[in-house]
This record gives sequence, structure tokens and C-alpha cells, in this order.
Amino acid sequence: MMSKKWVSAILLLQLCYTGCGFCEKVLVWPCDMSHWLNLKVILEKLTERGHEVTVLVSSQNFIIDNSKPSTVNFETFSVPQDKETAENKIFLDLSVNVMPTLSPWQAAKKLQDFFLQISADLKLVCESVVYNQTIMKKLQDTNYNVVVIDPVMPCGELIAEILGIPFVYTLRLSLGSTMEKYCGQLPSPPSYVPVVMTGLPDKMTFLQRVKNLMFTIFFDFWLQQYDSQLWDQFYSEVLGRPTTLCETMGKAEIWLIRTYWDFEFPRPYLPNFEFVGGLHCKPAKPLPKEMEEFVQSSGEDGIVVFSLGSMVKNLTEEKANCIASALAQIPQKVLWRYKGKKPAMLGANTRLYDWIPQNDLLGHPKAKAFITHGGTNGIYEAIYHGVPMVGVPMFADQPDNIAHMKAKGAAVEVNINTMTSADLLNALRTVINDPSYKENAMRLKRIHHDQPVKPLDRAVFWIEFVMRHKGAKHLRPAAHNLTWYQYHSLDVIGFLLACAATAVFLVTKCCLFSCRKFGKTGKKKKRE
Amino acid sequence: MMSKKWVSAILLLQLCYTGCGFCEKVLVWPCDMSHWLNLKVILEKLTERGHEVTVLVSSQNFIIDNSKPSTVNFETFSVPQDKETAENKIFLDLSVNVMPTLSPWQAAKKLQDFFLQISADLKLVCESVVYNQTIMKKLQDTNYNVVVIDPVMPCGELIAEILGIPFVYTLRLSLGSTMEKYCGQLPSPPSYVPVVMTGLPDKMTFLQRVKNLMFTIFFDFWLQQYDSQLWDQFYSEVLGRPTTLCETMGKAEIWLIRTYWDFEFPRPYLPNFEFVGGLHCKPAKPLPKEMEEFVQSSGEDGIVVFSLGSMVKNLTEEKANCIASALAQIPQKVLWRYKGKKPAMLGANTRLYDWIPQNDLLGHPKAKAFITHGGTNGIYEAIYHGVPMVGVPMFADQPDNIAHMKAKGAAVEVNINTMTSADLLNALRTVINDPSYKENAMRLKRIHHDQPVKPLDRAVFWIEFVMRHKGAKHLRPAAHNLTWYQYHSLDVIGFLLACAATAVFLVTKCCLFSCRKFGKTGKKKKRE
Repeated sequence: MMSKKWVSAILLLQLCYTGCGFCEKVLVWPCDMSHWLNLKVILEKLTERGHEVTVLVSSQNFIIDNSKPSTVNFETFSVPQDKETAENKIFLDLSVNVMPTLSPWQAAKKLQDFFLQISADLKLVCESVVYNQTIMKKLQDTNYNVVVIDPVMPCGELIAEILGIPFVYTLRLSLGSTMEKYCGQLPSPPSYVPVVMTGLPDKMTFLQRVKNLMFTIFFDFWLQQYDSQLWDQFYSEVLGRPTTLCETMGKAEIWLIRTYWDFEFPRPYLPNFEFVGGLHCKPAKPLPKEMEEFVQSSGEDGIVVFSLGSMVKNLTEEKANCIASALAQIPQKVLWRYKGKKPAMLGANTRLYDWIPQNDLLGHPKAKAFITHGGTNGIYEAIYHGVPMVGVPMFADQPDNIAHMKAKGAAVEVNINTMTSADLLNALRTVINDPSYKENAMRLKRIHHDQPVKPLDRAVFWIEFVMRHKGAKHLRPAAHNLTWYQYHSLDVIGFLLACAATAVFLVTKCCLFSCRKFGKTGKKKKRE
Repeated sequence: MMSKKWVSAILLLQLCYTGCGFCEKVLVWPCDMSHWLNLKVILEKLTERGHEVTVLVSSQNFIIDNSKPSTVNFETFSVPQDKETAENKIFLDLSVNVMPTLSPWQAAKKLQDFFLQISADLKLVCESVVYNQTIMKKLQDTNYNVVVIDPVMPCGELIAEILGIPFVYTLRLSLGSTMEKYCGQLPSPPSYVPVVMTGLPDKMTFLQRVKNLMFTIFFDFWLQQYDSQLWDQFYSEVLGRPTTLCETMGKAEIWLIRTYWDFEFPRPYLPNFEFVGGLHCKPAKPLPKEMEEFVQSSGEDGIVVFSLGSMVKNLTEEKANCIASALAQIPQKVLWRYKGKKPAMLGANTRLYDWIPQNDLLGHPKAKAFITHGGTNGIYEAIYHGVPMVGVPMFADQPDNIAHMKAKGAAVEVNINTMTSADLLNALRTVINDPSYKENAMRLKRIHHDQPVKPLDRAVFWIEFVMRHKGAKHLRPAAHNLTWYQYHSLDVIGFLLACAATAVFLVTKCCLFSCRKFGKTGKKKKRE
């Protein structure tokens, strides 16, 4: 009989054989909430392919530990702040009752204040790792091959830099996309690449382009200042040499972006940017029995799926009733993920759930529409299954996400703050009864499913590529070596203009000199 | 027994089943010489996957007909000019004895004159198709699903536009890359994207950036004029509405570029640009017996493969002897593709061939170095097999191709015009004996072979995608709808500056007015 050791060895060999053929060590610096849901899918695939994955997670995380895939290891470090304080800070200001009342400018300012406020907390978190000698020693000794980082929370790149390991980013976007633009050198012409938070389409009118350029300037100046104030100094301190957050971030080997051209407006990008939107999507699984019965009871009319995401837990009573009364007037059955008090106006066709299997519901043949706050994960599930949307965006990238779906004809937007029951009802009737919305959603679905390689496989491929080749330097543009004025050729233009001016000056001088000389000679000759 | 018809039907079904699952009709507008060798590989793959491929070919073509894959159909149209006149025009000015003596500026000017000169001939060719009612009727009736176009010779996009069929480009680059930049909206910052014909790397010194910007301006102004003079008018005439060559080219659904990041410097690109360099490469086949014996006779020293491509047929006697004497001094055996008179100085280690199986020789374990003129096809075969190069570039993109390989440490360049025997000998000894060249060539090989999808499969995927979806409009950037000043936001910047100036003016006026008014009141009060 074979010993246990032999069986394990054979199993490991088998795993490696069915997987990538080489097993490496992956360190992960994650971000919480919906970001984690997306990243988790990549990590599960990596472990499935035989890699050893370790997630660095703070003791104040919200959902990471609870939803951990069993194959992933966790390295938990403690931070001075407790979970409740952190949670309150996040939910207080970004709640559904505050953000939608603000103009885009106010919302941008609010978000910036929010980031400044939590920036100090994030620094505390970062210090808890990089100054923790036990953890750093352990990380150093493990000899990781790559660090996979969600860069919404800084620090991941700093840890990678200390450990001397190549790193890969995975993100939807940074605030104002400034990190991609200035640290990743991603070109973003403001004439047709709308700035995040503006909710603008790619085909803009003159005034929209004015707004877009002003937002570009706002983010460029405001946020560069925010970065340099806190993080540049901290990174320099820790690394013991003058550096910046942006310079450190610029060393990312690959940027895995959580969108694709079914969602994104076509725009310039770089070879080390890979668009892997929808990597978490998968075919629908059967629903729980009770839910399936409710769905089947909708008959020909079908169902509407409704969720405002994990950040919004309840609404004001008035708002909840406004929504409930609109839902009560449609012939469809509605499945509403809602944890608040049951609204008085709730119709017989609507059921409330603490949690819904969103992907399985959207993939159900009876799904007619999706009412969504516009998070990227949810929108991608709707694209994956070809379901038209009613968007009620609130903050961050949500207005933009819905703007993208509107521009592509697969969604109607409703302002959650100003809407009446009639507005929501009209929006719902439009996306359900006007066939163009379903057709456009199906077109996006076809585009999404017709890629040379699936998004998840591409994400995993590039992470493994970085491990195999110890980086991906052949994809790194030389723009990283240029200052901003060199990048825009301002020094060269200045030099050429100076040359031209000098030439004009010299020619003029020569002409004047000649005129004067010959003039004098002429006069002299005349006198003689 | 089954009838022949049934057998054919089953075979066709089988073909479709093993292929793409749907059989469509592909029309092709090719370009001659080495371009055709690359395109042919795509067409063979398309026919293998069950598509019906028809190549539109002029009666004056050089190699297209001779090398036709048996599964491709040809639609030949006659042109007023005969093959010899056309051939003489091409080879006369671009011969190896003329081009290398010129500076980059002179060479660029020469090439431009060359293009102007053959532009008139190309228009004749184009007229022979679009005004030929029999051919156009036949093309119209066949209901093609896509046109695959090599855009070096204009006309393909015009035919596609008349027929109302989406089209896909396949090219290495246009002169100065102006077509990609202005018709395809490909961003090309002159600070780190070297202009073709300059032979510059991506990491440039200040003076190199000055040179690059000057070349950018040269190509921008000069060639835009060249386009508009002849083709804009012709395209408008034929289509019966005002248009330009560039506007028509801008409708390309996909641009398949014949390079990849193993060869190309990392640069910004767009979602409808796909880099499929090296798609023609394949593993080496066994050599003919006599050749294999000669190769094996090289022992440990190995062989050197030498070809100046299909455009150069012979050299001056002096040049040929200079080369031969250098080759005679190396311990390797040399296989030289050369059709000219046998040089007197030819060593015993060197054999001349009218034609060599280049890919099979480069893929032979004994291949130590490749002396090449720097055509993209040959360079990619060297990358595919990891063989270091000695570059003797002559014209067109060749100096740039070699510059790329030099910058990546896989080649040494020799100026064919000024070189001595010693120069060539030193270059050969360097790439053979300095291990860094072999290592870098092997690194490029590893990058080339480590892609999520092989280049040929990607090329075919996107051509089929365009057929399946009747285009790829979701990849088309909104930049196509902007004028050049809108693209660079000059109108918006002007507007904002005007607003700022007006505000400053009004505030100043108000201040002055107040000062005057209050000043007067003060004075009045004082007086009172």
C-alpha cells in the first residue's frame, strides 16, 4: 500500500498537471466589499491551478474572512481601529440618503473629503503591516512570486517593493482615473474619454467636452496634491529613498481592468492594460425551490430583479414606499433585496429578501429587467445574461456605469433622489416593453461572450505570465521615463521655437547690417 | 451507394464542423511581394476553416498567382500597364545600390517621390476594377461578408464601400504611420513612439526626440498633401459624394498589425488594433538532403543564414566580394541566398542558393546567426526560433526593424554602403560569440511563444468576428467624429481661456469703476 506522503505527492502532481504546470506562491493585497467578490474569483482560479495563495487581511475587514474560499490562506494583521468605527465612517457619508442630493461637483468634493478622511486610517493600516517585523519577516521568507493588488487602498505596491517582488493590479478605476493616467501612463484624451463621476458619454457635445476638461483639471490638481501630501512622504520614509506613491505604482507589471468593450467606451490603452470585465460571471444555477415557485408564478410576464448592492442597507420610509408603489403597478413579479422595514405600499407581486442569488435570477429565462444601483459587478451579470436595466445610481462610479449602459441603449436612468413612483414605473415599462432595450442588452451579451479568451482566463494568464517571466517589462512603455513636459514634447517644441526665433533674429540682423553697410557705402560712393 | 453530391455535402458539413461552424465569403484586396507571403497564411487558414476566399488580383502582379494556395479563388482583372514596366519602376529606385547611400531625410524624400510616382499607376489599377462593370456586378452578386485588405495599395476600402461590406486591414505600417494615426486615430506621442524611417529607439535622448518630432511634422504635412491631391478627389468622384481617402480608411473595423510586443516598442493603441506579428511562423521542417549534409558538416560551429530578401537580386561585384571575404573568415558554414554572379572571394565555407528554406534553416538547431536586410517576415522567423541577427537594412521599414532588434539586444547593425569586410566580420563574431545576443533572442522567442492566443488564431478570430457581427462598431473610438482641433480640445481650451479673460476683464472694470466712483464720492465728501 502506498504511504500517505506518496498519495499527497501524486495528487499534487496531478493538480499541477491539470493546472498551469508550475505551482507558485501568490501574495494578495485585497480591497473589501464588492471589490473582494471580484478578486476572490481570480484567487479561486489560481488555487485551482495549483498555486499557493495568501491574502493579507486586516482585522477590521468586513466580508473578506466570511466569504473566504477554503483553498486560500489568510495572513491576518491587527490594526488599532475596530471594525465598527471603520464601518460607521464609510457608511455615514456615502449613504444613499446623502450622495444623491449632491451635484456632480459636490459629490466629487464629498468623495475627495471622504478619501482624505480615510487616508489617515489607511496609513495606520499600512503601518500595521510594514512596521510589523514578524509579518514582514514571514513574507520575506516565503519567497512569493507575485503580489496581486487591488490598489484602491494604497500599501500593496509598497509591500511588493520592500519584498522585491513583481506585482499586478486589479481594479475598476481610481478616483478620476488619475492613477491609471499618471502612474500607469494611460493616455486619456479629454475630447472623447469621459472623466469618471461626470456620467458623460464618449460622443460629447461642445459643452459636455468643456465639463469633461474642467473635471480633468479638477482631478489632476486636487488629487495629485492629496497623494503627495500624505503618501509620497510615507513611501519615501519606509523605502529609505525619495520616491512617490505614483512612481511606486508605476512599477505595476500588468493592470487588470474590470471592464471590457461591451461596457467601456473605446479608448486608447497600453499593452500592459488588460480589460477583463465580467470575469466573475457564470451560467445561472437552479434557484432555491420556494424562489423558483415564486418566479414560475409570474407566467408570461416574467420577473424583475431589484438590488441596490451591499453598501445600501435601508432607505427612508417615504422612499421605500415610493418604490414599492411603482413596483406594485407592474404585471411582473419582483424580487427585491432589501433589509429595511417592510414598506406599507408593498404590492402582492413584490417579495423582499435579505439576500438574493442575483446571478442565478438574472440568468433565469423569466428575467425581464434589473433595477440596479449600477455597481460594475451587477451590471456585468446583466450583460452576461442580456437583461436590460433601470439604473438608480448613487455614488462613486455608479452614475458613470449607468451612463455607459444608457449610451449603449441597454438602460434607463432614474434619479433616486428626485424620482416619483411614476418615474420608476415609466422607466420599468420602457425597458420591459420597448424591444430595443432587450435587443441592445442581447447585443452586449453577444459581444461579451465572443472573445478570443474568457476574461478570467486572461486575468490568470497574465498573473502567471508575470510569475513565469519574473515581470512583463516588454510591455512597459518608455513614457515612464519622461517628465510631464517631456511626455508632451514641450521642451522639444520650446527648443524648435527658440531655434526658429534665433534664425529669424540672425537673418534680420544680417539683413539690417547689410542694408546699413551697403547703404553707407552707397552714400559714401555718392559723396566721393 | 451514396451519390457524389451527398459525399460532397457531408464533407462540407464536416469541414464546417471542424472549422468555425459557419462558412462565409471573404473578398481580398492584397499587396504583392513579401506582403502577400504574410496575407496568404491568413487566407489559407480561412479556407481551412471552411470560408470561401476570393482574391482580387491584377494581371501585372509579381508573385501572387505563382504562390497561390490551391483552395483560394482568384478574380483577375487586367490593367493597361504590363508586368515588366511595373517591375522596373519598383526595382530601379529602391535598389540596394541607391537607397543606402542616402541620409534618412533623403531616403524619406526618395520614398515619397517613389510613392507619388507609382500613385498614378495605382490609380490606373483601381480604375480598372471600380469602372469595370462586369467585375463589380459579379462582386456585388456574390454577397461577400467581409473584405480583407492590405492597405499599402489604396482601392480596397473603396471597393468595400461601393459593395457596402465591412472590411479589415492587415498591414505592417503605412509611410510615416500617418494612415494609422490620422485615419485609424491611433495615438502616437512623438516623445516615446519613434516615427518610422528614423531608426530611433523608444527611449530617446533630447536630440533624438527633436529629430522624431521633426520627422512627425514632415510626414504629417507632406503626406497629407499627397493623399488629398490624388485620392480624395478620386474617391469622391467614384462614390458620388465628397469624401477623403482617410475618411474611407477610417471605416476599417479591425486593423491587424504585423508586429507584437516582442518586436514593437510598447505604445498606446486602440481596441480595434490587434498586433498579430509572426503569424506566418511555424516549426522548422526537415531540410533537403544535400542542404542538411552541408549544415551537419558545420559540426559544433553551426551555420549562418544569409538573405537580403526578395527585392534585392544582385549587388555590385565589389560589394559581393567584400561580403564574401568576411564570410570566408568565420568558422561557421554559410548559406547565402544570392542570384548574382559568384563572387571571386567566396570561401569554401559559403554556398550560394537561388532560394533557401529560410524558416527551416533558422529553426535548425545548428543556426547561430541570421544576416538579414531586416524585413518583418524574416525578423519574425528569427524571433520565433530565437536566432540573433546581423542587420544590413536598406529601405522602407528595414532600418526601423533592425533598430528595434538592436534596442532589444538581439542584433548588430552594419551599414551595407560603408561597411568593410572587417565590419561585417566583427558584427558576425559579436552576435555569435557574445552570449547576450543569443540570450536576448531567446527572451524574445519566449515572449513570442507565451501569448494567450497565437497570432494567426487572433487574426482569424477578428476577421470571423466581423463576419459574425457584421462589423465591430463597439471597438470604434469616438475620436473618428472629431476634427483635429476638437480632438486636441483646442476649441474647449480657447473657450475656457476666453471665459477666464472675460472674467478678469469684467472684474478689473468693476474694480476700476468702483475705485473711480468711491474715489469721487470720497473726494466729494472731503470737499463737503
